[in-house]
Amino acid sequence: MLRPIMRGLFWDGSSVRLRRDLASVQAREGEVVLRVRSVGICDTDLQIVRGYMGFRGVLGHEFVGVDAQGQRYVAEINNACRRCAACVAGRTSHCPHRTVLGIVDHDGAMADEVAVPRANLHAVPEAVEDHRAVFVEPLAAAFQVIEQVRVTDTDRVAVLGDGKLGILCARVLRTVTPHVTLVGRHAHKLALAGDTITQRRSSELSDARHTFDVVVDATGSPSGLEDAVRLTRPRGTVVLKTTVAGPHALSLAPVVIDELTVVGSRCGPFARAIDALARDLVDVRSLVSEVFPLDRAEEAFACASTRGVAKVVIDVAG
Amino acid sequence: MLRPIMRGLFWDGSSVRLRRDLASVQAREGEVVLRVRSVGICDTDLQIVRGYMGFRGVLGHEFVGVDAQGQRYVAEINNACRRCAACVAGRTSHCPHRTVLGIVDHDGAMADEVAVPRANLHAVPEAVEDHRAVFVEPLAAAFQVIEQVRVTDTDRVAVLGDGKLGILCARVLRTVTPHVTLVGRHAHKLALAGDTITQRRSSELSDARHTFDVVVDATGSPSGLEDAVRLTRPRGTVVLKTTVAGPHALSLAPVVIDELTVVGSRCGPFARAIDALARDLVDVRSLVSEVFPLDRAEEAFACASTRGVAKVVIDVAG
Repeated sequence: MLRPIMRGLFWDGSSVRLRRDLASVQAREGEVVLRVRSVGICDTDLQIVRGYMGFRGVLGHEFVGVDAQGQRYVAEINNACRRCAACVAGRTSHCPHRTVLGIVDHDGAMADEVAVPRANLHAVPEAVEDHRAVFVEPLAAAFQVIEQVRVTDTDRVAVLGDGKLGILCARVLRTVTPHVTLVGRHAHKLALAGDTITQRRSSELSDARHTFDVVVDATGSPSGLEDAVRLTRPRGTVVLKTTVAGPHALSLAPVVIDELTVVGSRCGPFARAIDALARDLVDVRSLVSEVFPLDRAEEAFACASTRGVAKVVIDVAG
Repeated sequence: MLRPIMRGLFWDGSSVRLRRDLASVQAREGEVVLRVRSVGICDTDLQIVRGYMGFRGVLGHEFVGVDAQGQRYVAEINNACRRCAACVAGRTSHCPHRTVLGIVDHDGAMADEVAVPRANLHAVPEAVEDHRAVFVEPLAAAFQVIEQVRVTDTDRVAVLGDGKLGILCARVLRTVTPHVTLVGRHAHKLALAGDTITQRRSSELSDARHTFDVVVDATGSPSGLEDAVRLTRPRGTVVLKTTVAGPHALSLAPVVIDELTVVGSRCGPFARAIDALARDLVDVRSLVSEVFPLDRAEEAFACASTRGVAKVVIDVAG
């Protein structure tokens, strides 16, 4: 018997290639197969092809797909065992046995089809079109900041990093406090944040100290944390969004002396992100730089690696 | 007019010397002069003579003294301006204009007399004798852990570092949860913790991961944080008590991936420490290794630097 084949953007450890000979995905226990409509390229995808997480397989975890009944879904990316102590305690995104869509031991969504646990599905309201739905996953990660840290409308907040995640974090924080500053290196990327967010070049703040109550490091750079620590007032909070593969080298004495709280922050609440998109509380449309069809996925991937490009979306079907 | 002179253990940037020619202390605005009764030697003192904080002057910040009326006092060590924004917001221990007793721009208490802000004084109950009263400052620092982090009686807690601060932290944590493990390198120092606290050699835990809900790094070593991060379960809390002058080099990716909270922790609540001593909730007597008179303060200082010695106390008068 011939098994059906499909297309998928595959990272084999040495190159990223659109393969047309992949076996159609098989659902594992508890999983459902979705036909992919659109999928975004994330900085994590770019890091994976630099060696992060040692992943091999089909890339892609920011997607919207459709089931056999035509219902559109997005899906949380951590595939938990739902049986271990961490899962039972409600920390399914930290299940030690988890696979992670397109990141750890599970093929991702830059393909015609993807398998995801039924428990991870979230239906997408009609108001949220495909090119906004692919932002649910990163937007949820941005909402995680205000799930973990109580931010009020008098708090002065800075987000370091003018990449997509930094801009999303700034926009989410802007929904709770008017005092949001985005700090980055590139005027044209900062400008994407929009004029309700204060924009500052990193160089303007190189001498500043203790300026903000909460600072989010979304630089993706090992130096981000040291800047964040310097800019946070005593007893303030640093939110660490940056995962870098290499070691940080920094003095942590200020964390103790200033009694800072450093909060590691990763995946977030899908329901809250979907609701924010449905109500148009957070703009994501302006972050889409380019759209490619799956047949041009290699080109899309190269484009996403280009300086100054925000979100690249791959349309698979739809 | 001849001004009266006094004795004081003086760090001049190159040596620690008992001087007998110091001018008697002058109270600055808002300060009161106490005659010192006893003063403890802290690891911070040992770090200062290795260059920490660039301090010059009389050492000593863990002390008990007496005013002209014979009332015994201990004193908080941060001398705040009480006028700036941080002070007005209640963060006097983080006043950017502060001096710190025996640490930053203010002579300390290893002397016949010491000047401290009246606002920093805490009367010492009769039940707390001098050699326990010198522990109020470090014990308050240990209580700060449970002021900052909610620890319950089901939490599994580890304290890394079998020095004085580590043992005090372990004992304070033991008042809120029975599941306290002290991790150190030296069997004889671990044994000081007493048998209600689980004692583990660091080497026994070198392969352990995600074992504790809360981990306190009181190692005084740059490697402590990396161990603490490894031992903390996802969404758990690391309390950073270690201030080291040099840079840390470590991968912080696990802080993000495991969504840890890292809390810098420094000075703590004197009232709570005094109360705990008055009610004998936390033993400190067993931590006193040696007592020297002030005339032998140089010897006391050398003794405190010796491996395996816990608290060295200098008796000044009393």
